[in-house]
Amino acid sequence: MHHHENRAILLVTCQDKPGIVAAISTLLFNHHANIVQSDQYSTDHEHGRFFMRIEFEWQKDQAHFRSIQQALQSLAATHDFTYKLEEAQRKKQMAIFVSKENHCLSELLWKWKAGELYADIPLVISNHPDTQVEVESYGIPFYHIPATKENREEAEAAAIALLKEHNIELVVLARYMQILTSTFVSQFPQRIINIHHSFLPAFIGANPYAKAFERGVKLIGATAHYVTDDLDEGPIIEQDVIRVDHRHSAKDLRIVGRNIERIALARAVQWHLDDRCIVHQNKTILF
Amino acid sequence: MHHHENRAILLVTCQDKPGIVAAISTLLFNHHANIVQSDQYSTDHEHGRFFMRIEFEWQKDQAHFRSIQQALQSLAATHDFTYKLEEAQRKKQMAIFVSKENHCLSELLWKWKAGELYADIPLVISNHPDTQVEVESYGIPFYHIPATKENREEAEAAAIALLKEHNIELVVLARYMQILTSTFVSQFPQRIINIHHSFLPAFIGANPYAKAFERGVKLIGATAHYVTDDLDEGPIIEQDVIRVDHRHSAKDLRIVGRNIERIALARAVQWHLDDRCIVHQNKTILF
Amino acid sequence: MHHHENRAILLVTCQDKPGIVAAISTLLFNHHANIVQSDQYSTDHEHGRFFMRIEFEWQKDQAHFRSIQQALQSLAATHDFTYKLEEAQRKKQMAIFVSKENHCLSELLWKWKAGELYADIPLVISNHPDTQVEVESYGIPFYHIPATKENREEAEAAAIALLKEHNIELVVLARYMQILTSTFVSQFPQRIINIHHSFLPAFIGANPYAKAFERGVKLIGATAHYVTDDLDEGPIIEQDVIRVDHRHSAKDLRIVGRNIERIALARAVQWHLDDRCIVHQNKTILF
Amino acid sequence: MHHHENRAILLVTCQDKPGIVAAISTLLFNHHANIVQSDQYSTDHEHGRFFMRIEFEWQKDQAHFRSIQQALQSLAATHDFTYKLEEAQRKKQMAIFVSKENHCLSELLWKWKAGELYADIPLVISNHPDTQVEVESYGIPFYHIPATKENREEAEAAAIALLKEHNIELVVLARYMQILTSTFVSQFPQRIINIHHSFLPAFIGANPYAKAFERGVKLIGATAHYVTDDLDEGPIIEQDVIRVDHRHSAKDLRIVGRNIERIALARAVQWHLDDRCIVHQNKTILF
Repeated sequence: MHHHENRAILLVTCQDKPGIVAAISTLLFNHHANIVQSDQYSTDHEHGRFFMRIEFEWQKDQAHFRSIQQALQSLAATHDFTYKLEEAQRKKQMAIFVSKENHCLSELLWKWKAGELYADIPLVISNHPDTQVEVESYGIPFYHIPATKENREEAEAAAIALLKEHNIELVVLARYMQILTSTFVSQFPQRIINIHHSFLPAFIGANPYAKAFERGVKLIGATAHYVTDDLDEGPIIEQDVIRVDHRHSAKDLRIVGRNIERIALARAVQWHLDDRCIVHQNKTILF
Repeated sequence: MHHHENRAILLVTCQDKPGIVAAISTLLFNHHANIVQSDQYSTDHEHGRFFMRIEFEWQKDQAHFRSIQQALQSLAATHDFTYKLEEAQRKKQMAIFVSKENHCLSELLWKWKAGELYADIPLVISNHPDTQVEVESYGIPFYHIPATKENREEAEAAAIALLKEHNIELVVLARYMQILTSTFVSQFPQRIINIHHSFLPAFIGANPYAKAFERGVKLIGATAHYVTDDLDEGPIIEQDVIRVDHRHSAKDLRIVGRNIERIALARAVQWHLDDRCIVHQNKTILF
Repeated sequence: MHHHENRAILLVTCQDKPGIVAAISTLLFNHHANIVQSDQYSTDHEHGRFFMRIEFEWQKDQAHFRSIQQALQSLAATHDFTYKLEEAQRKKQMAIFVSKENHCLSELLWKWKAGELYADIPLVISNHPDTQVEVESYGIPFYHIPATKENREEAEAAAIALLKEHNIELVVLARYMQILTSTFVSQFPQRIINIHHSFLPAFIGANPYAKAFERGVKLIGATAHYVTDDLDEGPIIEQDVIRVDHRHSAKDLRIVGRNIERIALARAVQWHLDDRCIVHQNKTILF
Repeated sequence: MHHHENRAILLVTCQDKPGIVAAISTLLFNHHANIVQSDQYSTDHEHGRFFMRIEFEWQKDQAHFRSIQQALQSLAATHDFTYKLEEAQRKKQMAIFVSKENHCLSELLWKWKAGELYADIPLVISNHPDTQVEVESYGIPFYHIPATKENREEAEAAAIALLKEHNIELVVLARYMQILTSTFVSQFPQRIINIHHSFLPAFIGANPYAKAFERGVKLIGATAHYVTDDLDEGPIIEQDVIRVDHRHSAKDLRIVGRNIERIALARAVQWHLDDRCIVHQNKTILF
């Protein structure tokens, strides 16, 4: 995606009914905005849901953008649709949570520095000090918040305070090995992305690679999903697999698997940052 | 795709400029047509080309559809766009050309019978009799037109006559081992799909598997493309690859490869039949 | 694999210990047999299992082959290993079971006729008449044995009688929608291959595509496995997946999925026929 | 692979003839060495080449290993085979060459630190200073050797001196944008691995992504190969591809492509380090 100065992304969700595309595209045309790319999908045209993503460009003037914002607000009220309007140029504020293993973290940081992830990263939080040097080498503040079963509430409160302080809009769990409480999750609805080290729903829970080894699977996978209160049950954003064979020990599967984990997670984060994901019930629409 | 009775696909191409989406979607809304799915893409928003594919539904009445047709015709003149409007329910007339090897033919026939390829197949033409029994077992007429360098013009004339007689809209070269003249090609612009047995542009020309074997590649591929006068140079619709290794002889590559050929060709044919391909210069836009 | 007249495949399994490779390769050398390809693997060199597959060629003479057979029998007794010795040229006797859906059957029959599956197919058995014409068009006898919960024992007895009569060595369940009793399974240990229409162990049991749709997965898969008494729990031979997205209905997943099912099943059958699979506990070693 | 203290890898190449496997496995057995894994392949059993890779374990004693070495040397002379014997535990000395773009370098360094690449990296050489901080953060010395057409000989001489000083056994060109002279290449036969940013032999030479964009391909690829005097023509070790579509600009292809480049290169390096590659004529045998 191109993050030009005068480009915006509009995500729309509503009960499907005729005329929404016409109303929105006419609004944009009347405001001299040009649609650069658009995707639309309806679950079922009779009683279904309508989803749309539009990238458009406006004339280089914030007043102009604000007038589009206001017009959309009115239109949404009239037509009863939910929408999200984002300036493409604005970087989202993203925090990364990590434990000891750094493969997902390293991938995200490398892609971020290479310009493939369009975000600011004001902080990384970890329950272990292991990745501090790496994080700080990117000029990113690192916060060590030890977390145990005993201090979970305090630790989460400290984390939430930091996230709020930095206006964090996306939390990425890059192999963060603590379970988050529903208090935490409810603060960031559809804004926490986790990587699960299996092809969900296979091998839900702990030690998926050990279970995969026991079962003798010929492919192992990874699943990036939004976090909900139901562990490993949130809306799936991305999945990928890699071929393995009888020569792989359980430990080998873990090593091979982390190369899929980091790729699947990075893709999911990128799509979220580019406003390509809409969550509907327990699924994602990816444009 | 769903081939409902009252559904249509509209493909639009033009010089990019503001207002096209608004104009078309308003037209459809005014005619009580509901947009079910839409995709839009512009090569470059300043001086670029605009491409759009819309699936919509109208009220169950041919008069209603004709009024949409007429309105579109006027709009296209006003806004200077090119378009193609297809009723989803109407089956395209497709002919298959084949030589001796039947793997691509068998795949197409199986998928056609299974309902995955939405078309009528009024005839299969071959320069060899080998596949006659198979073709006729599907109730499809088989025409044996021997083709050699000497009789090429006559053979092509006979084929063209048959294709015209059956109002053929798509010619699929399912491993047809004769080169078509530009006379033939010009009769079916962007309506002949060929499968080339390599990952183009690698191994252009004859015997790609022998060349791939010589080069020691680790993947072999296949390329489905529209046929133009430039051999192996037409717009690519689909490509796929499969992993091979040092144990594969040139003959093994050919056997492995045909399993990729048939899959890539069937996908390309399906996308064409579902009006998902727009050719622009020497490339395809796939919605 | 090349099914030459004077080529054989030797599969060996035993407790790992030094000297097995030396003993067997020396035996073959002493009998003027040349090793063409060999693969060997041990689960763990201390107290592990040893697996080996050797392709070798002998001088063109059945007496010569028999002398190798006898020598191997003695050696196996001395060294306490289990082995299987197969002439590459001999075609295995394979039966296919099918219900109504023909996608896996068609793939197997096409590949068989194309020479990619090295076997004889003396019969196809079905609990429905739907595929009779297709099967018989290949010159293969078709047996319609209706199977219900009520007549399961009789139906299985009839099937077993036919399989025994034709000396069937491999039973392929090509989307056969009846559960086999343990009586049946025990007659063909590690010689029944089933295709399950999901990426096991995800979506065990009935209606995996409906479950996959509900869960919103981004990949769907298929699993070819040996049948044991534990439904969907037998040793996995092959798995594959294909990418899907939010636009796929549950029905679309089924259509997309059958294209993966047929490919995964055909690969598993081919590997079995080429003596590439060794079952160890609940896993397969694939050479 | 497991780099145990008392494990070795033996690679053997020779004219194919009966008895080699027997001779070598008997030698190992007689020296109380246990074969842990073995792979063997012959190009053609009549007048072909024989290739074998054996992993074996000996009793924990260097004297024991030396006696195996001596015995092998004699056997090689008798049977006229070429071999390479490597202790699995010994780390190869690897140098990385890089220019400005760091994606391949970062991948190699991350995998090296994660233990996935079993080597020492005594130095990184670059014709630009851009990656110095990153390299040194891993504790690896960084040498900046500016290279231009004018000073190529001197620059190469300086690099060769450094490589010799550090006993470098493998040179990895991780997007090093200078052409090496045949003087350089001849110093490291089959020991220089390059990553080419296309699916060779498509798009040989400069600017492959621009060419791929022009051709409208639907997959882009990367090729890791040994460097020979013929540019882009050396033996291929690994290739991989990724799907792209009409929305990718030439610049997007470059960004997507580097994610395939780094993966393909890292795999090729790993296989080389684990002694899995044998070069035969212009191809690789990968065990």
